[in-house]
Amino acid sequence: MGPGPSDVHPRVLQAMATPLVGHLDPEFVTIMNEIQTMLRYVMQTANRLTLPVSGTGSAGMEACVVNLIEPGDSMLVCINGVFGQRMLDVAQRCGARTSTIERPWGQVFDPSEIADAVRRVRPKVVGIVHAETSTGAAQPMEELGRICHEQGALLLMDCVTSLGGVPVKVDEWGVDAAYSGTQKCLSCPPGLAPVSFSERAAEVIRTRKSKVQSWYLDMNMVQRYWADERFYHHTAPISMSYALREALRLICEETLALRWERHLRNHRALKAGLAALGITYATEAGRELPQLNAVNIPPGVDDLSVRRRLLADFGIEIGGGLGQFKGKVWRIGLMGHTSRAENVLVLLAALEQCLGGGGAAVAAANAAYIS
Amino acid sequence: MGPGPSDVHPRVLQAMATPLVGHLDPEFVTIMNEIQTMLRYVMQTANRLTLPVSGTGSAGMEACVVNLIEPGDSMLVCINGVFGQRMLDVAQRCGARTSTIERPWGQVFDPSEIADAVRRVRPKVVGIVHAETSTGAAQPMEELGRICHEQGALLLMDCVTSLGGVPVKVDEWGVDAAYSGTQKCLSCPPGLAPVSFSERAAEVIRTRKSKVQSWYLDMNMVQRYWADERFYHHTAPISMSYALREALRLICEETLALRWERHLRNHRALKAGLAALGITYATEAGRELPQLNAVNIPPGVDDLSVRRRLLADFGIEIGGGLGQFKGKVWRIGLMGHTSRAENVLVLLAALEQCLGGGGAAVAAANAAYIS
Repeated sequence: MGPGPSDVHPRVLQAMATPLVGHLDPEFVTIMNEIQTMLRYVMQTANRLTLPVSGTGSAGMEACVVNLIEPGDSMLVCINGVFGQRMLDVAQRCGARTSTIERPWGQVFDPSEIADAVRRVRPKVVGIVHAETSTGAAQPMEELGRICHEQGALLLMDCVTSLGGVPVKVDEWGVDAAYSGTQKCLSCPPGLAPVSFSERAAEVIRTRKSKVQSWYLDMNMVQRYWADERFYHHTAPISMSYALREALRLICEETLALRWERHLRNHRALKAGLAALGITYATEAGRELPQLNAVNIPPGVDDLSVRRRLLADFGIEIGGGLGQFKGKVWRIGLMGHTSRAENVLVLLAALEQCLGGGGAAVAAANAAYIS
Repeated sequence: MGPGPSDVHPRVLQAMATPLVGHLDPEFVTIMNEIQTMLRYVMQTANRLTLPVSGTGSAGMEACVVNLIEPGDSMLVCINGVFGQRMLDVAQRCGARTSTIERPWGQVFDPSEIADAVRRVRPKVVGIVHAETSTGAAQPMEELGRICHEQGALLLMDCVTSLGGVPVKVDEWGVDAAYSGTQKCLSCPPGLAPVSFSERAAEVIRTRKSKVQSWYLDMNMVQRYWADERFYHHTAPISMSYALREALRLICEETLALRWERHLRNHRALKAGLAALGITYATEAGRELPQLNAVNIPPGVDDLSVRRRLLADFGIEIGGGLGQFKGKVWRIGLMGHTSRAENVLVLLAALEQCLGGGGAAVAAANAAYIS
């Protein structure tokens, strides 16, 4: 119940144990096609260039930035937590002229301030995090594509923690490049990073003047392996692909709508229980992510000793704070297969034992489930 | 029986199905330490900075190059196949001033010509492939560390296809940076890239003037997660780490010496059988890799139809040729768990059915096993 990796469904674990085939085997090619089709559904996009990059979510971030940016290109990065900061670092390492706008941790950006900055900076790319894993904040995305496109900019979205847990609508929002990770709300082990590029972004990549600085992440080559051509680039992570296919199948069976609803229901119950313990959110009211509950550690409570006790006595991991939230915030994940009533209830019961409580937290959660 | 991924031992498949823990969980930290200890044995090195990069072998190549090279640094790349060529491309993408020496495909470099080039170019880094997966050639490495160090150069070695199948002696050979992949002779699914850096190389990385151009592969950050500090960088591929630990345990149980001997024994039997079919090697005599048999497709034989029949009728995959060897060469892998007598014998029997043969190939292989 930390910020990821989330629990993995037994069917996904089982899929990983499937014997290997070659990365150009006809059976594997079928699996690749199925993964792409299901990823398009989960990302709500018709983008042809939608595939998993062979690395974790941070490799997905790097893949998006290094493919869109050439040395000297301007990029505007919106920073309100660790992962916006990371995107800035990645952009600088590939020679972008970077500008930033910032928001205090736990808050999100208003579309109007992004519009002002885009008009001022006129960047090639605007980078923003949809679900900030370090702060638990959900950035409204609805207007951002239009804002960027009016000024000729491309919109790059981090949806590592959002994909599969809350609505992610790549096409409807006008997102030009999106990256995610498998170990959050997709409930697959870490190791692959789904990415998707709009036709506009794909054209920018196709017509670059310079080579992409990363050979491994160069979409001009990677996409030839994922297209009918099946041109050898690097060996795909076979077992991880089996796992991702199974995780995506589970999402298709559940449907996105019911999956989002489930994440919300468990979040509301957890929140009610935490409120009964006097625990408040570190995130701006109304922007809390259902799957990543960033809450203030109560005064006088020792961060590490509670987290160690939860792990040792109850087998529960919750996350500590990152960066300026270190020692101040806990991050409670209810992601994918982890988002279940039994997890909410046992965590609240365990917290009552650790912090002192007479059953009010569990009762409040149960009331929320029943209402 | 292609050029990788190789077959995976059932114990490794089983390990992948283990439920996930967090990437900072004390249990996982123990696994990380065990992986590092066993990798040092398998790579025959005492290098502190020895760990698996979170990507496939090509990410390992990129990790080595981008960490050692700063823009404008000189790098000499030895090219006698696809992977030397790839290393040149990677080096150019990170701003190296590159020089090359070349050998026809299937041949290897003489230490004296490398020494001449190093004296002439005075590069910061010399890159060479130990086991060229595209040609099946084994490069002698014994003198190369001394040659490089005498001129102040660092020696970078690709041991993707060699590690775990033939002797790889990082320290004895004076290798400063080495990278491999998990899906060849380690017989683990693809997805991780073991790397190792000498103290000399680690110092070069520590004292860089510019940031490493890849955030994801920046060893200055990655190593802080693998050190006692456990500083969060990116989420480690948990299930793949379980698999690598189990694959390394299998190697430790077998011992490297017996594993190398097994690879050689099965290679000799295969070679005897192929000779009985009139099939010759594309690799310079005496330089054939036991684990990657690159052989000339007999005149008049159709590449694709034989490979398709092997797959459809016998469930056997062998590799086609890459680059200039396409349509001319088959690549028969006997890597790790795939290197077994039953595989050699069934492939020869199947080839006899495809190409015509009266049992001489199988008999020759059996004779080689018995002698």
